[in-house]
Amino acid sequence: MDGSSGAEFELIAHLTRGLPPRSDVALGVGDDCAILDLNGDTLLLATSDSQVEGVHFKRQFSSPEQVGRKALAVNLSDIAAMGGEPRYALISLILPADLPRSYIDVLYTGIRHEATHYATAIVGGNIASSSNSTALVIDITLLGTIERGHAITRSGAQSGDTLMVTGALGDSAAGLYTLLHPSARYPRNAQEILRTVHRAPQPRVRVGRILSQFGPEIITSMLDISDGLSGDLAHLCTCSNVGVYIELAHLPLSSSIRAVAASIGYDPFTWALHGGEDYELLFTVSPGHAQEVSEAVHAATSVSVTAIGTMLPSEAGMKVVYSDGHEDVLDVRSWNHLKH
Amino acid sequence: MDGSSGAEFELIAHLTRGLPPRSDVALGVGDDCAILDLNGDTLLLATSDSQVEGVHFKRQFSSPEQVGRKALAVNLSDIAAMGGEPRYALISLILPADLPRSYIDVLYTGIRHEATHYATAIVGGNIASSSNSTALVIDITLLGTIERGHAITRSGAQSGDTLMVTGALGDSAAGLYTLLHPSARYPRNAQEILRTVHRAPQPRVRVGRILSQFGPEIITSMLDISDGLSGDLAHLCTCSNVGVYIELAHLPLSSSIRAVAASIGYDPFTWALHGGEDYELLFTVSPGHAQEVSEAVHAATSVSVTAIGTMLPSEAGMKVVYSDGHEDVLDVRSWNHLKH
Repeated sequence: MDGSSGAEFELIAHLTRGLPPRSDVALGVGDDCAILDLNGDTLLLATSDSQVEGVHFKRQFSSPEQVGRKALAVNLSDIAAMGGEPRYALISLILPADLPRSYIDVLYTGIRHEATHYATAIVGGNIASSSNSTALVIDITLLGTIERGHAITRSGAQSGDTLMVTGALGDSAAGLYTLLHPSARYPRNAQEILRTVHRAPQPRVRVGRILSQFGPEIITSMLDISDGLSGDLAHLCTCSNVGVYIELAHLPLSSSIRAVAASIGYDPFTWALHGGEDYELLFTVSPGHAQEVSEAVHAATSVSVTAIGTMLPSEAGMKVVYSDGHEDVLDVRSWNHLKH
Repeated sequence: MDGSSGAEFELIAHLTRGLPPRSDVALGVGDDCAILDLNGDTLLLATSDSQVEGVHFKRQFSSPEQVGRKALAVNLSDIAAMGGEPRYALISLILPADLPRSYIDVLYTGIRHEATHYATAIVGGNIASSSNSTALVIDITLLGTIERGHAITRSGAQSGDTLMVTGALGDSAAGLYTLLHPSARYPRNAQEILRTVHRAPQPRVRVGRILSQFGPEIITSMLDISDGLSGDLAHLCTCSNVGVYIELAHLPLSSSIRAVAASIGYDPFTWALHGGEDYELLFTVSPGHAQEVSEAVHAATSVSVTAIGTMLPSEAGMKVVYSDGHEDVLDVRSWNHLKH
């Protein structure tokens, strides 16, 4: 699953309507992963996501190794967003006829790097060439496992829960911005850091595992940010039937995004609120547990966790509180990858 | 896995070299499915296969409903070829920008038809549009299960085993031939039957389940025929390290293929030996059990099973015995879908 687009979910839900339910499908289309119950101590997680050249990446913006890493990373992020352990990948490539063989070799170097780092076995796949296409497609299905009762879905958030996020927001979108709008004004180091986040995001697999150990009474819901904070927060609120307010001043920004934004007089919070492909984890914590969770994650992984808001009853809708204290309805934008 | 191409297997094996093994992968790349061991009574089967427009199908040759059915059927056939029960599908579509929405709806009608018939849940997937491609791609990952100890791989055939095949051979290739070379000479009914086999092959899921109940001491190896009999038999011989002789006169031919071949003076055995996409099951049976197996399958499913040869020591190579009794080396050809 794309782990993201509401319109895509709706279309798939429409297309799969009327199919007889299977009792061993604990959770079907609509979350980061499906949850499949094979009667063991662990449940199976399954997710599928593709990277299409010209839609999700450009060959001139990323090395083949980075394209390979990212193709697996976006799937690893969906497993992370359930709290699961990644295990098995099936990798399908659709190759434009003119793609050099060396490109495929280096692409797979990136896939192998990511697979090795996250102890994921490549157990299948297929390769087809198409003379009717100039777009490289990498479609990956990733299987993982989660201990029974520990999967963190999108639907458990409750009013009063604290909204938290890992890492920093907007770096990927800012990195893409510098690629689409080259300028000598960007501070060089900051630009390179942001571009690296965009080209090869780090899935938060270890953080997800730690959060899953708290159990769904404490970590009440989770997803990964692929559409952007506002869009994915809207998914979370819809699935959990809650509202939210976020405090803009609390959104975690890296020093790199601040430096690049300052160099061109841009508001970095626009990237943080609406920029896609962060692949950070966005999750809710039941009242009174935020600090304990934050400390446990940081102690084990060095990844920072920041409280950015509080869940509300659904009637309250989605709100943002600006630094000067005034409150407004949160503008939800849908990230459209290279077309933003 | 494509369940077929030796060259594709070799490329994937090359690309995935050096990855650390996982002890829970009972069987990785190189068979019809991977076998994954989650410590339960049943093992997980995983396979992935794509249908690319212009490579595997043409929009003018098949209805959207047939394209959808076939995309799932070729994956169901890989599960059947291990003796497994299909369970969960993840479906990825890459759409050319100009594809009408109605095409997708009808394509999914075909996918739902096949999913319902084989009690398979659609648990995930993704949809992407590409303006850089004029080729529709349907990439499916199918998960199934098999009782521990009952999976039938490609590697268990032994000298002396009987080689058997389900159904009839060559119908799909003959049907495609009539599409690529239209002629008024083909008998109309026979032409339509062959074309239907080509457009919407029937995966032998129920037969595979029955064969798996005999256990690997009796059904020693199996695969499905996607490359064509000669090509897939070569895979079986390589994986099991055996030779084989087949008796040409014993190859099962339908009355339709005989009628169409006769109408143009073509040798139907060429289609039966080398035509791809039969999606029949090719399997080996330990000595003395062929009749019992054949009767059990026919009684439960009405599918005919035919003994077509005997396995030999690997030194003997691959041989064919013609109807006049003379023997020759079996010519192995690789099926190239629409380019044959």
